[in-house]
Amino acid sequence: MTEILNKINSPKDLKELSTKEMYDLADEMRDAIIKRANTISGHIGGDLGMIEATIALHYVFNSPVDKLIFDVSHQCYAHKMITGRKEGFTNPEKYSEISGYSNPTESEHDHFVIGHTSTSVSLATGLAKGRDLLGDKENIIALIGDGSLSGGEAFEGLNNAAVLNSNIIIVVNDNEMSIAENQGGLYKNLKLLRETNGQADCNFFKSMGFEYHYLEEGNDIEKLIETFSKVKDTQKPTVVHIHTLKGKGLKLAEENKEYFHWIAPNGIENFGKNFETETYESITTDYILKKKEQNNAVIAITAATPGAIGFTQEFRNKMGNNYTDVAISEEHAIAYISGLAKRGAKPIFSVISSFIQRTYDQLSQDIGLNNSPATILLNWGGISEADMTHLGCFDIPFISNIPNLVYLAPTNKEEYLAMLDWSVEQNEHPVIIRVPFNDVITTGIEDKTNYSILNKFKVAEQGENIAIIGVGTFFELAKKVKDKIKSDLDINATLINPCYLTGLDKELLENLKTSHKAVITLEDGILDGGFGQKIASFYGNSDMKVLNFGAEKEFTDRASIKDLYQKYNLTPEQIIAKVKNLI
Amino acid sequence: MTEILNKINSPKDLKELSTKEMYDLADEMRDAIIKRANTISGHIGGDLGMIEATIALHYVFNSPVDKLIFDVSHQCYAHKMITGRKEGFTNPEKYSEISGYSNPTESEHDHFVIGHTSTSVSLATGLAKGRDLLGDKENIIALIGDGSLSGGEAFEGLNNAAVLNSNIIIVVNDNEMSIAENQGGLYKNLKLLRETNGQADCNFFKSMGFEYHYLEEGNDIEKLIETFSKVKDTQKPTVVHIHTLKGKGLKLAEENKEYFHWIAPNGIENFGKNFETETYESITTDYILKKKEQNNAVIAITAATPGAIGFTQEFRNKMGNNYTDVAISEEHAIAYISGLAKRGAKPIFSVISSFIQRTYDQLSQDIGLNNSPATILLNWGGISEADMTHLGCFDIPFISNIPNLVYLAPTNKEEYLAMLDWSVEQNEHPVIIRVPFNDVITTGIEDKTNYSILNKFKVAEQGENIAIIGVGTFFELAKKVKDKIKSDLDINATLINPCYLTGLDKELLENLKTSHKAVITLEDGILDGGFGQKIASFYGNSDMKVLNFGAEKEFTDRASIKDLYQKYNLTPEQIIAKVKNLI
Repeated sequence: MTEILNKINSPKDLKELSTKEMYDLADEMRDAIIKRANTISGHIGGDLGMIEATIALHYVFNSPVDKLIFDVSHQCYAHKMITGRKEGFTNPEKYSEISGYSNPTESEHDHFVIGHTSTSVSLATGLAKGRDLLGDKENIIALIGDGSLSGGEAFEGLNNAAVLNSNIIIVVNDNEMSIAENQGGLYKNLKLLRETNGQADCNFFKSMGFEYHYLEEGNDIEKLIETFSKVKDTQKPTVVHIHTLKGKGLKLAEENKEYFHWIAPNGIENFGKNFETETYESITTDYILKKKEQNNAVIAITAATPGAIGFTQEFRNKMGNNYTDVAISEEHAIAYISGLAKRGAKPIFSVISSFIQRTYDQLSQDIGLNNSPATILLNWGGISEADMTHLGCFDIPFISNIPNLVYLAPTNKEEYLAMLDWSVEQNEHPVIIRVPFNDVITTGIEDKTNYSILNKFKVAEQGENIAIIGVGTFFELAKKVKDKIKSDLDINATLINPCYLTGLDKELLENLKTSHKAVITLEDGILDGGFGQKIASFYGNSDMKVLNFGAEKEFTDRASIKDLYQKYNLTPEQIIAKVKNLI
Repeated sequence: MTEILNKINSPKDLKELSTKEMYDLADEMRDAIIKRANTISGHIGGDLGMIEATIALHYVFNSPVDKLIFDVSHQCYAHKMITGRKEGFTNPEKYSEISGYSNPTESEHDHFVIGHTSTSVSLATGLAKGRDLLGDKENIIALIGDGSLSGGEAFEGLNNAAVLNSNIIIVVNDNEMSIAENQGGLYKNLKLLRETNGQADCNFFKSMGFEYHYLEEGNDIEKLIETFSKVKDTQKPTVVHIHTLKGKGLKLAEENKEYFHWIAPNGIENFGKNFETETYESITTDYILKKKEQNNAVIAITAATPGAIGFTQEFRNKMGNNYTDVAISEEHAIAYISGLAKRGAKPIFSVISSFIQRTYDQLSQDIGLNNSPATILLNWGGISEADMTHLGCFDIPFISNIPNLVYLAPTNKEEYLAMLDWSVEQNEHPVIIRVPFNDVITTGIEDKTNYSILNKFKVAEQGENIAIIGVGTFFELAKKVKDKIKSDLDINATLINPCYLTGLDKELLENLKTSHKAVITLEDGILDGGFGQKIASFYGNSDMKVLNFGAEKEFTDRASIKDLYQKYNLTPEQIIAKVKNLI
């Protein structure tokens, strides 16, 4: 059923449709979105809710002259279908040709690569000011979800957009959800505005200086067209607040909004199923729940991504007051855990590698300078097949060059638990743990290392001639390299697990000089500014040869891991070839 | 005149005073603040305005059990005098013993090291939640200036503080100024609230869910005491909005608020004087004004620190619509310039090294991923005598490991102007220029380098045996080292200016192998994750020796440059000693 969609090759075609045909088009797009997401994964909830508004926007405005900027771009699927990319949603063979995010290389209707939240208003304000400087007149429209409004960058953008003195239209897509429930004072105001049909005197957007319009029927194409027509070509910074239904058209998604924010392949069939394998998620939540029973000062924190480490509804219920979702506000989260730690609580903040990028200054000032003994669990760190906006390969240089932080890279379950418990128990250091992002590896033997002795590397196997230092998840690769060096070169190499990414074990490195000629470093991230280069610098004035293996400094986009490892010379075969050249 | 101040050794002593004595105390503290700032420099405007409120806070609350958290801590001088540190303000010999910022190592009445804006509400929310988890009852009070409210972290904090369901008191010190004028929609609301004595229906703080109190007479001790007494022990998140006079008691400061935000030694005597020497500030503003005459798409941007690069009132007037102060909102600033650049404008954003730390994610996502051809002028980068909250030694690792960015380090005026003009003219790359932070060095010869050929190092003098790579301002040090190597070792070393910090000139480095045995790198910043370690890694598999010189990864605090250079082995003598050991 793509009868109408087949006719839509650009927004121009949309403008020929009757209202009835537009609703039929919405149904067809809805069907395509559900099938595609259930096949290759995708952000489904927000996209299903925004179909009608997207049709209305393209009907009223003249893209790409008028410019639509999608916040986090989790709601751009209908936009993509309308702007010449429908095959990426209707033809399974072409599903992967179109990214899940706004992307100017795909279409002139996309103006930025966008995948992190809360940026649309600021980007749009820049476009609008540029338009004014150049003397042009088009409409600039930012589309932002209610969830994204809690992010500081969105507020900063609103503060500046409000005084632009010219055209900017901010469409607030209020579906009453972030990934999970919204959190914070702002959301009480959005609720009040919904309940009063936008008429309440106390209005966050008006207080910021915006013209304000409310539309309760955010999935009604005619009313949307009417509303957008009213604000088109306005010369005043304007907010259009529309109330939409997240997951609209897929009953399961309407009723289970958090699960259906994003689904993996077969997400519909797998809804409600439990997979009882042990994961680093279950290991983590089991630990936290147990620790909280022993000490009511333990508190788990997320910034709107509870799913990253298994903070399920059940877990949250059990934690009760000892759990905070601070909403999308990573900067706040770091300062918040600093306050918690300084007041004697034991905060454990779970965050995704790509999103901790929001917090450099807070890591430096709020917890680094203050030596606040908070624990941060960094998830999804490492070279990955992710979209270019969600890469996890930058966190080692990002974090490890900030003073006072202790960044730990466990290599297996027992080490992870020992590091986690050490971090929670100690009162001296801000600690970040790079939660392994592979299948659980277990030694079966409790790790009794005293991690208070900072920067003490572990020699897993003492050998000679060549030392291999494998960081975190790449310790497994280091083992393979050691085996291959043995079989190919008959050298019994030394195998080292550094544990720490924020400092060198200078004594150990110095001692290696007596019986080793070369050191190989392997890290699951970019080389520039990372771990291995510190080793190379350490040995710069000596005869020790150093080979650093890791990723190049670049944004990759949905590349296969196999291709990336090949490109970065990360297979044991490639590594051995380089070692042979060296010795 | 320190008659009453002499009696104040802790907040307890304050509680014994009559109102008259409290006003006399305010006068005495005012006098001390002015004298000290005019002698050793200091944040004077905000501090003078907050004296009465600080007295009232300490009168009403019970510090340190009740906790006062000072945002950016530019207004903590009176607090310091009341809490046992008065000698640091009354005794010139002890002026330097007390820092200008909140500092727990000085007193139990300070709870965090704080020097960046917009963090107090988040830190206080953490303290309050920790208190609740531990079952305690004290008051937690955040003091935040109106200027700091535009920062995203402050908004994120407010959003979360509002739903704390327990005691937190946020005192908004509204003196109608940031460093310069406030900018943005929020400030229209603050104005409305001032004009309606806090009675306007449209109230930003109430929209966020706070209990709200307004006090127009923010320098009236009795009324302040009355107001704070009303909210003491409240169980609801509460905002107390007080209207104070920035610079109160020093007429010049009341009338020239921007100049007197912070003054250098003899700032009072030097007010109104012009120093007509050429600086990188005057070079920059002259360039921008001229460029704007040629092209109306040129726009200068600051995030509330116009003074960092000489964006004076005269400059702003001349720029007119081609100037934006986005207020304290560095994250927004980066996305804003990305929008500007993508719409064909030519944004030039000036920012301080320590404050660009707010923007890693925006540098990566908003301009890096999007290759937005914006220009960023990074000021005050390098090893410095700054307070530990304002260090400029971290920006090389912070910036240089982000893909797609071009980070340039000019070594003199002509190079700076050539890089700046290249950046503004090109349309391919986001460019950051580390504006030299030393006296202007001029060659007198126009630099005609084509900087589009990325990562092309310049060989300033071809020699042999040893190559010295001097980054940016440290190129001058490299020259001295070269001379000393010649005189001490009779070696004619090669001298290299790398220009680029975001990539290596691999061809040049490879060629050095033929006639050089050692490479020395000199960079004005921390070594970890920086420039030199990339060189060491490049040569890791070769016989080339590499010595990296730069700062250690640490937070230093008002250390003398001389001591720091000595500590980091950055004198020519120390460098030569290490070279001798090597060869």
